[in-house]
Parts: sequence; C-alpha cells; structure tokens
Amino acid sequence: MSVRLGFAVVRKPLCALILIGLAMAPAWAQRGRPTVPLGDGPWVYETYEPDTRIRVTVVTKGLSRPWSMAWLPDGAMLVTERAGRLRIVRDGVLDPEPVAGIPGDIVAGGLSGLLEVSLHPDFERNRYVYFTYTKPAEYGPTTALARGRWADGAIEDIRDIFVGDSSGEGNSGGAARLAWAPDGKIHMTMGGAGAVGDERAQDLGNHKGKTLRLNDDGGAPEDNPFAGREGARPEIFTRGHRNPIGLAFHPDTGQLWATEQGPQGGDEANILLPGRNYGWPIVTYGRNYNGTPASEQPWMEGLVAPEIFWVPSIATSGMVFYTGDAMPAWQGNLFVGGMVEARIPRTGQLQRIVFNENGEIRREALLRDLRQRIRDVRQGPDGLLYLLTDEDDGALLRIEPAP
Amino acid sequence: MSVRLGFAVVRKPLCALILIGLAMAPAWAQRGRPTVPLGDGPWVYETYEPDTRIRVTVVTKGLSRPWSMAWLPDGAMLVTERAGRLRIVRDGVLDPEPVAGIPGDIVAGGLSGLLEVSLHPDFERNRYVYFTYTKPAEYGPTTALARGRWADGAIEDIRDIFVGDSSGEGNSGGAARLAWAPDGKIHMTMGGAGAVGDERAQDLGNHKGKTLRLNDDGGAPEDNPFAGREGARPEIFTRGHRNPIGLAFHPDTGQLWATEQGPQGGDEANILLPGRNYGWPIVTYGRNYNGTPASEQPWMEGLVAPEIFWVPSIATSGMVFYTGDAMPAWQGNLFVGGMVEARIPRTGQLQRIVFNENGEIRREALLRDLRQRIRDVRQGPDGLLYLLTDEDDGALLRIEPAP
Repeated sequence: MSVRLGFAVVRKPLCALILIGLAMAPAWAQRGRPTVPLGDGPWVYETYEPDTRIRVTVVTKGLSRPWSMAWLPDGAMLVTERAGRLRIVRDGVLDPEPVAGIPGDIVAGGLSGLLEVSLHPDFERNRYVYFTYTKPAEYGPTTALARGRWADGAIEDIRDIFVGDSSGEGNSGGAARLAWAPDGKIHMTMGGAGAVGDERAQDLGNHKGKTLRLNDDGGAPEDNPFAGREGARPEIFTRGHRNPIGLAFHPDTGQLWATEQGPQGGDEANILLPGRNYGWPIVTYGRNYNGTPASEQPWMEGLVAPEIFWVPSIATSGMVFYTGDAMPAWQGNLFVGGMVEARIPRTGQLQRIVFNENGEIRREALLRDLRQRIRDVRQGPDGLLYLLTDEDDGALLRIEPAP
Repeated sequence: MSVRLGFAVVRKPLCALILIGLAMAPAWAQRGRPTVPLGDGPWVYETYEPDTRIRVTVVTKGLSRPWSMAWLPDGAMLVTERAGRLRIVRDGVLDPEPVAGIPGDIVAGGLSGLLEVSLHPDFERNRYVYFTYTKPAEYGPTTALARGRWADGAIEDIRDIFVGDSSGEGNSGGAARLAWAPDGKIHMTMGGAGAVGDERAQDLGNHKGKTLRLNDDGGAPEDNPFAGREGARPEIFTRGHRNPIGLAFHPDTGQLWATEQGPQGGDEANILLPGRNYGWPIVTYGRNYNGTPASEQPWMEGLVAPEIFWVPSIATSGMVFYTGDAMPAWQGNLFVGGMVEARIPRTGQLQRIVFNENGEIRREALLRDLRQRIRDVRQGPDGLLYLLTDEDDGALLRIEPAP
C-alpha cells in the first residue's frame, strides 16, 4: 500500500501549493503549530445546566490524525486515520494492526487523506462499509467514495463507486462527510473550494464546494435537483459551500444540516435544501487570511444565509445532534467540533448549541482547557458522545455524566 | 443626594419593564448571575506574540459597578460608579470619600446610572469635567451630558449641557460614551434602543440609538449632517445603533470607531461616518433572546455593515486602540471589553484585535480565566492598559509587561 504524504501528485505544484496555502494555512501555521500534549484524564466539568456535570475520559490515544468513526453492530468502533489507515477499537482497546484492505494511492495531508467511514444502514445484511478519501487525478487530488464488504477485521471487494470531478487548479480535497437519509440515499460533502479566487463552488459542472446525493451504489438518483440539466453534474444536491466538514440529519425535523469552515470568520451551519445555493464565494461573513473581506457583501437575496454562523471562526468540523438518554439536558442540542479559535492556535473546543422552538438561544464552549483540535463528534450506541482529536498523537475521548 | 435604584420613574412600569427585560436581560439573568470573586493577583499570562508576557495587577477593589475612568494631569484617576458616585484613585489608593458635587436624581440600574467621565482637552486651562448619566424625564429615564468645574476634590458649577430626547416607551438609558475629536467637538453615544419592536434608532426626531456630535458647551454644531433638516435632531451624527458602549478615535486613520452590543450575536465595531445609517433594527447579524432572528435580513444596500462583528456576542463594552510603548507588539491593536460570552455567565474577557493594512487578521481573548465582566478598557498616561470590572465589588486592573 503506497501512501503519498503531501501533495506530490499535483501537476502544477507551485501554483497549486500557493492556492492550497491560501485556502488552508492561517498565518500562525507558518510559525509552527504548537503541540499540546493531552493529559491522561479523566476531567470533570460543571456545565451550564446546574444538573449536568460531565466526565471526559480518554478511551485511547495513539491515533494519527483521526478523522471519523463508525460503530459495528458488536460495539467495536472503526476509526479512520488521515494517512490512510482504518483502525479498530474493541472494548476500549485500540488494535495495533490496521484493518486490511484499504487501497493505496491515498493523497494525505491538510484536509486530504482517508476521511469518512460509514456503514450501510442495512449493514447487518449486506456488510457494506463506505469510506471517502482523496485520490490522485490527472489534474491533482480529488475526492472519491469507495465501498467494500466487511469481513471480520478486513475489508474486501473494495472499489470506488463515485469519483468527484474537481478539475481546475488549486485542489486540496477535503470535507467528504457522509450521512444516510431515511430513504437510503447517501449525502456527501465536497470541500476544497476555499482558495481565494476559486469560483468552482458555484459551477454546476464541477463537484467542488457542493453537497451530493447518491444512491447506495454511487449513482445519481433521477430525482436529484439538477438531474438532466445540461452541463450540470447529476449528483449535486446543493452548491456554494467552502469546506463542509460536518453533516447530520436533525432527529426531530428531519432536516439535513452541514457545518462549513469559513476563512477567519464565516464558519456556518446550514440547513440543506435541494438545489439551493449557499453562497460561497459570492457572499460570506468571513475575511480572507490576508485581512480583506472574502466577498463584497455578506448577504444576497436568493442565496441561502446560514442558520448559525461563527465570527470569529472556530474551524468547525464534525457535528451531531444529541438524542441520548445519558445527558437528558442535552437532548436536541447540536454539538460541533472546533479546531482553533480566532486564528489563535491551541484552542480547539466542543461547542454545544441550544435551541428553542424559534431558533438558537445559547452556545457553550466545552473542553476548551484541553486545547485539542476536535475533528469529529458522534453519539455512540451507548448514548454517550465520542470525540476525535486532530493531532499526530490523536485521541478518542468519551463524554459521560459525572457521578 | 437622592439616588433612585431601578426604574421607578418609568411611567408605564409593566410595559416598560417587559421591554427593558427583552432588551437587557438574557435568560440566565433570571436564574441569578453567579458572582465570581476576583483573587488578589497578580496574574501572569503568555499571549499570542512570543515576546509578549503580561502581568495583570489589581490596583484597587471596592468599586461598585464602575463604568468609566479619566486621568487628571497629576496622574490621579477619576472613576464613575453606576449608582451615582465619582471616585478618585491617587497613587493606586482609592479615596474612601466620593468626589463631592455630583447631582442627585440619577436613575441607576442595568445600563443606566452615572456613566462616562471625561476631561475637556483644554482641562489644564478651563478645569472642565464632563460626565454622562441617566436622569428621569417625564416619559421615563433619559441620558444627559453634564459639565462642571474641577476644584481639587470636588466638582463645582455643575449643570446639564445636553439632555437627550428618548421619549417613547421602554427606555433603559445607557451607552453614553464620550470621545473628543481633534477639532474640539464631543462625540457621544446614545443607546437603549435594544427592545424588540423599538424603531427609535431609525427616527431622526429622537436621540435613541444614535451617536451625537456636540460643541463643548453641549450645543449642536452647524455643520452636523442633519443640522437644519426639519424633524431631525441637529445633534445627530449617525443613527441605527443598538447599545454603542465603546467609542474611540483610531490613532493612525483618525476614524471614529464605536462598539455596539447586539442581542445574542451581532455585537459590532463600526467606523462612524457623518449622517450614515448603521442599520439597527432593520439589519443585524443578531438573534433576539427568544431565538428569533432580530431582523428579516442581515444586510441591506445603503446601510453600513460593521467593520468587525461578533457572533456569538461577547457583550462588547469599552474600547481603546493601544498606542503605548510598554507593549510594542500591541501597538495599533484594538482592545474591547467583553461582559459575557455566548449567553453563558461568568465568562467576561478582554479581546485584542490585530489588523494589517487590509483589515482584521486575528482576535485574542485575554483574561478569560478571571471570569470578570470587563466594562471599560483605557490606556493610561503611563502607556499601560487599565480595566474596570462590572461587579458589585468591582476592580480596577492594570496590564503591564511581565518581567
């Protein structure tokens, strides 16, 4: 298995690296991002609700830039590592051997690499495991969706069922979360459209900066909003996104939500509706890293404004709506992982957003003192929250009620 | 001296209290805001710039809801207390006796009370001290500007030189910062326009939700943008503000900046230009405390968008641009006091905003672990930063380079 670190497959490396740099690397990255060692825990926190004390436990460390997690029916947990390894955690113990069968040729680095892992809703019958990853294309890296069959510790019969068209300069892969609709369709995010001057998020002939709706075999459903439109990719569900790295269905409304990273300022959580345009880069609340506003105006009639946004940015990542019984006060809350804060390193966090029937009423920043980059947050089958930290020695954390 | 606590002078108390409640009291206030005792310090912090370590010292405690500060030529410091006392700090020692001469009849509570204190630029010659305060009017509280003469520990010949017209229901006073233009004019903010449904910030016939430009005797300069316009108050400089509680001239550009509190979301820093409309409540990035968006759209052609904004809100208060020699890395930075965070109590902070030639490039939250509501931040004649905490036992803090 050959893993390529960095962007060695980009054809016009200088130009591409400049664009990637503008899209992804805040200025402080050039000073080197300080590594913040995570302690052994557990940590106990008071939270906003008087009766909700939480304990945060390290389930395991030793995960290199973990990105996503999924639970098998027996309770074991699959975790992706950016460089191209699929790991498994059984009874809280990380198996030292990666799961066999993940293909090589993964382009890893920044927002690229082995990204999402997700099980088919009917996994118990068909054993299908899906994952997204960044692969080389003739014009540079692009994002693919692969499917294989779970065979007790290995994945077999793996093949790409969808490969995005990200042609054009300045590709950085990225995003590529998955969410399963109740009708069995796959929703998938496509990022990498953050470079200054990159208009592809608006171009229906390209998969960059879009969300997609796919059949479970990777094909485009006939009732997709742009199906049959000349020059449009039939997989597109929404457009005008920058780097949508979180994706989840709301448990009560059934609406599909996506978080999206802005530059400094302009992180968003959007409710995705078929065929709609979410504005990037025509309108945004963000500023470019060089200090200029990222769009001439922040809002325009006909372009969907975010349901929630963050100024300054927290570098929103994975998201989940909590539905468990373990923390009753948190039911219906949105949890969003944050990687940084206001372009200051070492200040990742978990954000909790509380709604009433009208909309957002409160946000709470959790775990800020741990200073970890929170890449993903999911609810486990036990009703507890699980987090992944985006570090070279990344960790899997669990949040449970404190006694 | 009779000080009225609360809003007993409001004529239609129930309606007014409801409006005031919506404008000012987030839901957690109804649970009681926890008091966070401030330690004795000093505290040393690493900050973003590797060579900028700071030490935070308590100059004095024992200030009740202090609001503003000004330095006398001899280095002594005047500090207002909301309930109606003017205090003096000499050589770091708080005089137990308030300065004599402040008038009674001050309506104190919430954002109302004795607010700003400021010296005339030609103070050494004329001994003029200015302050703003909330006073009863026939229709409820309103905001006034008074001037007196400093007489070594007392203020004499004090009289109102401007009384705002805040007629209409739901008055809560507030804002009322002062800044002196190089041409000797006084700029003054007028808040209290935050109640849902209160459109007075747009009404040129009223002083609510405006900034004003006044002669040093309180009169309206003839070259004011609305001077001579029928139905318009001649003192108005800008309109469409909610609660603009910070005001400062930029040391390099000469532009006048004001911070402004939104509801949850939508705190702003604006560059004030004569005659312009800053949008409240027609456009805002904020949500009402009940969760509904505070305006139908967040932006409109012709209404000035904020130069900087905060979503979620930090409850922006006083502000200053740093120009001192003590912290060279901070020169040109904007410092803004924050009272709360994301509607979570106990999380005040001092925000530092860094610019390059294009605009904002970074924000840093300082002193967050102290969990104090930062009401004001100013630069002292010694080139150090001074802060006031909005607490019943409020403190005066100083920030200096750590050895």
